[in-house]
Amino acid sequence: MALIVQKYGGTSVGSVERIKNVAQRIARFRAQGHQVVAVVSAMSGETNRLIALAKEIQPQPDPRELDVLVSTGEQVTIALLSMALMEMGLKARSYTGAQVRILTDNAFTKARILSIDEDKIRADLDSGYVVVVAGFQGVDEHGNITTLGRGGSDTTGVALAAALKADECQIYTDVDGVYTTDPRIVPEARKLTTITFEEMLELASLGSKVLQIRSVEFAGKYKVKLRVLSSFEEEGEGTLITFEEDTMEKPIISGIAFNRDEAKLTVLGVPDRPGIAAHILGPIADANIDVDMIVQNVGHDGTTDFSFTVHRNEFTKALDVLQTVKAEIGAREIIGDNRIAKVSLVGVGMRNHAGIAGKMFKTLADENINIQMISTSEIKISVVVEDKYMELAVRALHQAFELDKAN
Amino acid sequence: MALIVQKYGGTSVGSVERIKNVAQRIARFRAQGHQVVAVVSAMSGETNRLIALAKEIQPQPDPRELDVLVSTGEQVTIALLSMALMEMGLKARSYTGAQVRILTDNAFTKARILSIDEDKIRADLDSGYVVVVAGFQGVDEHGNITTLGRGGSDTTGVALAAALKADECQIYTDVDGVYTTDPRIVPEARKLTTITFEEMLELASLGSKVLQIRSVEFAGKYKVKLRVLSSFEEEGEGTLITFEEDTMEKPIISGIAFNRDEAKLTVLGVPDRPGIAAHILGPIADANIDVDMIVQNVGHDGTTDFSFTVHRNEFTKALDVLQTVKAEIGAREIIGDNRIAKVSLVGVGMRNHAGIAGKMFKTLADENINIQMISTSEIKISVVVEDKYMELAVRALHQAFELDKAN
Repeated sequence: MALIVQKYGGTSVGSVERIKNVAQRIARFRAQGHQVVAVVSAMSGETNRLIALAKEIQPQPDPRELDVLVSTGEQVTIALLSMALMEMGLKARSYTGAQVRILTDNAFTKARILSIDEDKIRADLDSGYVVVVAGFQGVDEHGNITTLGRGGSDTTGVALAAALKADECQIYTDVDGVYTTDPRIVPEARKLTTITFEEMLELASLGSKVLQIRSVEFAGKYKVKLRVLSSFEEEGEGTLITFEEDTMEKPIISGIAFNRDEAKLTVLGVPDRPGIAAHILGPIADANIDVDMIVQNVGHDGTTDFSFTVHRNEFTKALDVLQTVKAEIGAREIIGDNRIAKVSLVGVGMRNHAGIAGKMFKTLADENINIQMISTSEIKISVVVEDKYMELAVRALHQAFELDKAN
Repeated sequence: MALIVQKYGGTSVGSVERIKNVAQRIARFRAQGHQVVAVVSAMSGETNRLIALAKEIQPQPDPRELDVLVSTGEQVTIALLSMALMEMGLKARSYTGAQVRILTDNAFTKARILSIDEDKIRADLDSGYVVVVAGFQGVDEHGNITTLGRGGSDTTGVALAAALKADECQIYTDVDGVYTTDPRIVPEARKLTTITFEEMLELASLGSKVLQIRSVEFAGKYKVKLRVLSSFEEEGEGTLITFEEDTMEKPIISGIAFNRDEAKLTVLGVPDRPGIAAHILGPIADANIDVDMIVQNVGHDGTTDFSFTVHRNEFTKALDVLQTVKAEIGAREIIGDNRIAKVSLVGVGMRNHAGIAGKMFKTLADENINIQMISTSEIKISVVVEDKYMELAVRALHQAFELDKAN
């Protein structure tokens, strides 16, 4: 008998029929003798409907009231799922975030969980109940309703699993696991049976939408065994997200992430002296523009070139900021390019394997793809290339590193 | 400066536009220097939508989960109304029933209010906030969400007004006050500027849908000044519901209530001995059939006739029950009639005025309307007549008692 926390996203509970399917899945786990806590999102479309209603009244909705409003979405789902479970003859009981109680800070619309009072849930489980908890929401110390921000239901699931010391936290979604890369671009992409937390973090931050990054961090911190599965398939083991220590044989490369969301800016002829990076990026940060990759080459002739990437939507804004900065620091020229793509190899194995970067660069060179920027971390190598080469780069790397073959 | 509790029903907050109108009305009261607590229902149609969703999943929805579900309706409204108030530059803050906290018993779907913790509301009012409270809902001592049953938002409004010792509780609805009778039947029907609680109780229980009866009882018990107004008119004083002592000159008759909802059953030739009424009505109560009027004539020849009325929907069921009873008590015959109407004169003044009943009966006789049953209370006289005469009876009585003229 295991204690399992299962999280079902908005698509998985998007209709009465799907809610009944979720109830059936939970019933199968109960029949096997497991204890189940189900964490659910709002029915798909509901959160957007509520936000649209709010904006009709207040174009910039008050954050406290917005949380009161949108938290009703999950509250509807917990009641309906509990009813579906009872209709199948199971004992079930629902809890809102406030009822659990999931205590958060008071940062409305993007609150962080501080603690979870798991006593009621544990007592219910011991009495044979399936416990159904509203994801995405909590309550601050003054009793105000808070929400964790988009994707926060994943975080609720992981946090509950940590508090209850659950044997596994299962995240049900509309994909059946984590792939080596997007199967729409590389048909040979292979589903991974396991992936490490660190790799998952890199993949999540690089735009793989399977799991919300905060929930992965949370799972890593509290050593929660996390599994990604499809709610639309009866069978399947999904992808288990493991701690590195668990993995005897580490694959060198686990996956390839990519996106076209960024734009590149370069300040040419920057005087090469201490503090210059801060001088350039300070005004960018002041303008609330997030920076991703940052590259500075060694200088020559007392000047250097400084490049960084921002989200494509903020390209023009960033260019404007740099024009002001240019005069202040006496740089020669500002150039920018918003037709770039970022492609990244991710894998814990590359720590101990030399030559991965070299093989990556050679593979791209063989396809005549010019590399514009390079950035590396312990378990990731990212390159910026012209955006039209993105799919070609991903396919070539997938084949070169034999990701279609089980490791 | 007064403290006013305003209750807005589902129709009054049925759309974004109407919610904005409510905000404007509240703003006018604030501009006059009043403190305002707004109690709101779910947007019209929302509660029924949620119940339908529940029944798709569980034909007899679990009461606890049903309350979790339907309580989201008012939660949506409080957030939207607070936003609308802020958008007009007012300070506003919303509270669910649990947040207030409105403590109830644990009779899910029909809970009763036990106490209200008004401290937070009072502090907010003193800081210049409009406080927006979800009607219809509360929380039991274990933190379970409860609802007060249909129409419960009126009760929330009155209970809050009592707890806060408000100067007035205003019930906004789609009619502009309480009338001497239904204007659709008697065009000369006149809006009353005042009516006593006792009269209102009789009118409410007789089918006037203006106020929920429990809220009127509550207001009477805690001496809350209650006023019924239209949310669709900018002006108008509505109808003030007063304590009898407040009224210097009591009108003899305040209004005429009527309905076609009942059916009449008569047990003929009942042995005239103690306990016989209980013997007849016991099985009726056991079958969960509510009884309204009960009439027993004096006996002769050792037998008597026993009549009572039930809701028309339960006529057949009641007839079946009586067939069994008939044999047990040795009655002669059971007869029934579901084509009846009840017409009632209501007025605190009739206590001290002889001759009201006589005038009523003569008025009906002049119209050739036969009276089938009569029942009286201190402030009410009800008669049962053939249902086709109902409108005629109401019009004749309205004219005879000169209800179209201000008293």
